[in-house]
Amino acid sequence: MASREWYLTSSSIKGLLLDITGVLYNSGEGGGIPIKGSIDAIARLSKAGIPVRFCTNETQCTKQEIAGKLNRLGFSLNAANIFPPAPAVRLVAKQRGLRPHLLVHPGVLPEFSDVPQDSPNCVVVGDAAQEFSYENMNRAFQILMGMDKPILISMGMGKYYKEGEHLVLDLGPFTKALEYACDVKAEVVGKPSKMFFETALRDMGITADEALMIGDDIVSDVGGAQACGLRALQVRTGKYRPEDEPHETVTPDGYVDNLAQAVDLYLAHK
Amino acid sequence: MASREWYLTSSSIKGLLLDITGVLYNSGEGGGIPIKGSIDAIARLSKAGIPVRFCTNETQCTKQEIAGKLNRLGFSLNAANIFPPAPAVRLVAKQRGLRPHLLVHPGVLPEFSDVPQDSPNCVVVGDAAQEFSYENMNRAFQILMGMDKPILISMGMGKYYKEGEHLVLDLGPFTKALEYACDVKAEVVGKPSKMFFETALRDMGITADEALMIGDDIVSDVGGAQACGLRALQVRTGKYRPEDEPHETVTPDGYVDNLAQAVDLYLAHK
Repeated sequence: MASREWYLTSSSIKGLLLDITGVLYNSGEGGGIPIKGSIDAIARLSKAGIPVRFCTNETQCTKQEIAGKLNRLGFSLNAANIFPPAPAVRLVAKQRGLRPHLLVHPGVLPEFSDVPQDSPNCVVVGDAAQEFSYENMNRAFQILMGMDKPILISMGMGKYYKEGEHLVLDLGPFTKALEYACDVKAEVVGKPSKMFFETALRDMGITADEALMIGDDIVSDVGGAQACGLRALQVRTGKYRPEDEPHETVTPDGYVDNLAQAVDLYLAHK
Repeated sequence: MASREWYLTSSSIKGLLLDITGVLYNSGEGGGIPIKGSIDAIARLSKAGIPVRFCTNETQCTKQEIAGKLNRLGFSLNAANIFPPAPAVRLVAKQRGLRPHLLVHPGVLPEFSDVPQDSPNCVVVGDAAQEFSYENMNRAFQILMGMDKPILISMGMGKYYKEGEHLVLDLGPFTKALEYACDVKAEVVGKPSKMFFETALRDMGITADEALMIGDDIVSDVGGAQACGLRALQVRTGKYRPEDEPHETVTPDGYVDNLAQAVDLYLAHK
């Protein structure tokens, strides 16, 4: 579908899934900066009664903190509508009796406070950032090598994101490092995993073909959502780089300059 | 070829290529520990007039320091017979006008002292160990992302090695991380690259089918040498793990308990 046409089918779109970082705001020092027009765009969706869920691979804090951070920037978000990977991993761990060794950011540890972590029988990787030290990578590696059948769970597979003015490494490369070292394939919980999108759709009570995903990650957001049967837009904000347009493997249902433009077009044609 | 048979063709073996770490000694605090029988085995090869080259992916120091370290442990090695990746990368950089950003161990920096490193146009990864911090990984990533055609050179692709009592991550996983983050394929200088084995063979003046490689890394040492037409033995020392025998993709020409046993069998049947 050509990029100017996606909004002609707006009437069939009953709910929106939005990525957060790079769509609502850019992360950086002092809590980050809202992307121009995004605060108003979210408010207009709310006023129009459009269900919205926030489907993020943010793994540096709890979802209450994600909501708090965004609301301090001027958004008006309910934590219950935010779907990050950590609570999903917590659920998986409890269901399967996994005792994770957590290679994660200290800020997300509270999500795992009631999950047993002694004698770990799996490794969970989040966006550990500074915690991706050689020591911590070695510790995770040694735990995996000590298992008969290593279980590696990755909260997303993002390659990089924008932090202030710079692109910085996301968790995906470090998961790849452990996969290579241990000859193991990670289970991904978070985008682009199908289960992850479906959880948010179920919460809205709509089907994949009634939903539109908007994200800045062409592979995890756009490609991941399309693989689940959703339509998906690529924003030209966040980690978007002009050289990724067109992309080798993923063709979005449309490109938009930012979230505000997507919401304008959607609401105008709804 | 069954493992008990390789030495029956000893008479056609004119020279030996030996890995160092895990074959001659195990690295660790205080300079490491010689592997039982290896000092004597090297001395017997020398006495028998067998040409030997040391084909190592060691990238934490210069080759003079590798020789010095081994000789302090009781070996008698000439630095000229040691072939580590750094001097090969140095040559490649000079031939191709590359100005490397070095993500390497501080100990190997002297090998690059006469290579221009301003406005880097490639990234070279060595076994940086503690230097594989999130900051340093990000720096290498950002330099690669700033290039039109990113050039990533990896001094080997080893997964892990033994340090004291523990397995620790080698450079390979970190190169994989950068490959994934930047959608780039690394050029490998060092084992298992063909050019690397051939340089050592040329220095001995023998052909691949006249040489025997002995190593503890089933993929880089054994598989790499076999892909170049050499025969290759797997030692059950160093990073060897019983669960790697038999190996999924590589079948050594023989397994030996250690270097001493290989040299015993070789000299007895020569």
